[in-house]
Amino acid sequence: MKCKVEFVAVASVILLITIRCFYTEKKPQLKGCSPNYTRSELLNLVDDPVHPFKTTVFVVTPTYSRLTQKADLVRLCSTLKNVNFIHWIVIEDSLQKTDLVNETLVECGVPYTHLFALSPFRRRKQIRGSAQRNRGIEWIRNHPVPRNEKAIVFFADDDNTYDPRIFKEMLTTELGSTWPVGLVGGSMWEGCITDPKDRTKIIDFWCIFRPWRQFPFDMAAFAVNARLFTLFPTAQFDYYRALEQEGVILSQLGFRNAYDLEPKAGGCSKILVWHTKTLTPPIYSYIGFQHPPPSFV
Amino acid sequence: MKCKVEFVAVASVILLITIRCFYTEKKPQLKGCSPNYTRSELLNLVDDPVHPFKTTVFVVTPTYSRLTQKADLVRLCSTLKNVNFIHWIVIEDSLQKTDLVNETLVECGVPYTHLFALSPFRRRKQIRGSAQRNRGIEWIRNHPVPRNEKAIVFFADDDNTYDPRIFKEMLTTELGSTWPVGLVGGSMWEGCITDPKDRTKIIDFWCIFRPWRQFPFDMAAFAVNARLFTLFPTAQFDYYRALEQEGVILSQLGFRNAYDLEPKAGGCSKILVWHTKTLTPPIYSYIGFQHPPPSFV
Repeated sequence: MKCKVEFVAVASVILLITIRCFYTEKKPQLKGCSPNYTRSELLNLVDDPVHPFKTTVFVVTPTYSRLTQKADLVRLCSTLKNVNFIHWIVIEDSLQKTDLVNETLVECGVPYTHLFALSPFRRRKQIRGSAQRNRGIEWIRNHPVPRNEKAIVFFADDDNTYDPRIFKEMLTTELGSTWPVGLVGGSMWEGCITDPKDRTKIIDFWCIFRPWRQFPFDMAAFAVNARLFTLFPTAQFDYYRALEQEGVILSQLGFRNAYDLEPKAGGCSKILVWHTKTLTPPIYSYIGFQHPPPSFV
Repeated sequence: MKCKVEFVAVASVILLITIRCFYTEKKPQLKGCSPNYTRSELLNLVDDPVHPFKTTVFVVTPTYSRLTQKADLVRLCSTLKNVNFIHWIVIEDSLQKTDLVNETLVECGVPYTHLFALSPFRRRKQIRGSAQRNRGIEWIRNHPVPRNEKAIVFFADDDNTYDPRIFKEMLTTELGSTWPVGLVGGSMWEGCITDPKDRTKIIDFWCIFRPWRQFPFDMAAFAVNARLFTLFPTAQFDYYRALEQEGVILSQLGFRNAYDLEPKAGGCSKILVWHTKTLTPPIYSYIGFQHPPPSFV
């Protein structure tokens, strides 16, 4: 009996290692944009001003109604208030704008745009956020960046943790940039690794979860030049490639793989973003008169 | 069979209502300070300057090592940076100061004091934070507020959510103040209710969890004048009255019950604090070489 257990254990370990090796090699290609531009061609097409008069970071945040929604938005607002070049695009997963989100944004003080987009009912459980992020992209396309300015797009979920310095890191993004993210994909961290001799060169990516992904990182791990959305007017998120939406959008924006991105956060040597989640608090059922909450919104 | 179920249901409801009524009446008194001062006597003893040259809010934060510690501290730092009159006292539950907390505080930019105090091993599971909060109080006693200044003490856990405006509300605290807190004690909110005709008068407290408490609110629901700690030099948290530490400290600082506190946040009409918790992320076990995280601290 004892031997059997050991055999199963050893076999499982070998199986796991085999799977890991096999999958690391197998990298199904995402359908990219066509034609396939080189980096310098793309930079030419984007044609950003050398010394932009102003740089804006569009923070695109999908949000949905839940117990901790207000708290999460208030906390993200406090973070964004630490930097003065943010334009916060908040898109609700709802039939219309809600008072709760509206009042939070008004009271926040960060320049914002309030939108809504209902997730398709059938796809809701599979992929959250695609409809909202696409609505955000649509807004960005309809508000092109002025000639003498520059803009960066970052998809920021409302419950993640951001060190305000990450927004400053994004400012220097030419086409697309990436950095490591903490507490994600079942790992302490996930993301780019640079050459110790040349911190501007990504040599590898670390992740445990689905390492065969072409862009093996989290939604919070990259930012892109806003002009790419005008340059590739059909690029959008979908409802099918669950767990790989980062690749879906980046491959349509002219990036062939994750190595095409510029390393940020001290050459990927610092964690400035954490993929945190807020616990849903327990609410006891209560019989009797219940005081209504003070203006909760 | 069907009747039996209904009988049990009705009986349970009656039992629950009985328990609720019974417990609301029963209010075991906490041992307060002696002699028993009136509010005006206390105000005289505290003797704050009428127009203080400067008002400081001491934010006392116990913290302990865990996966989300850094993220939670970074997020609280971002919140505190929105107000410029904070002195952040962070006390670690450890044998010595750790690099992680130290670097977070140095990089944060908010004026701070970094301390440590190990929780007694046996009491650890019962009550967390008492040893650290007492160490913070000790520091406040050793650094008395200058004659022409004023200081307020607020006990802020590192994972809660604070609207920066709550710190501005505290500034006008004379002796002790309170406000409602969201998502706490199994309820959407908990805390003070004021007279609709006179918003400066607390007429009731709303809570579901242990409503017989003399101070029926959360640690994040009150702030007190720092001079009270010098006036009552033995006041401290204990390791015994779990779930009632708010009352333990307030009753020793000259407050007879929760109605002695001043209502803040628009006469208790706004939620500016939420008792949130950050989910512990799942970390998968992984066999093989694992890239060390980039400078995580």
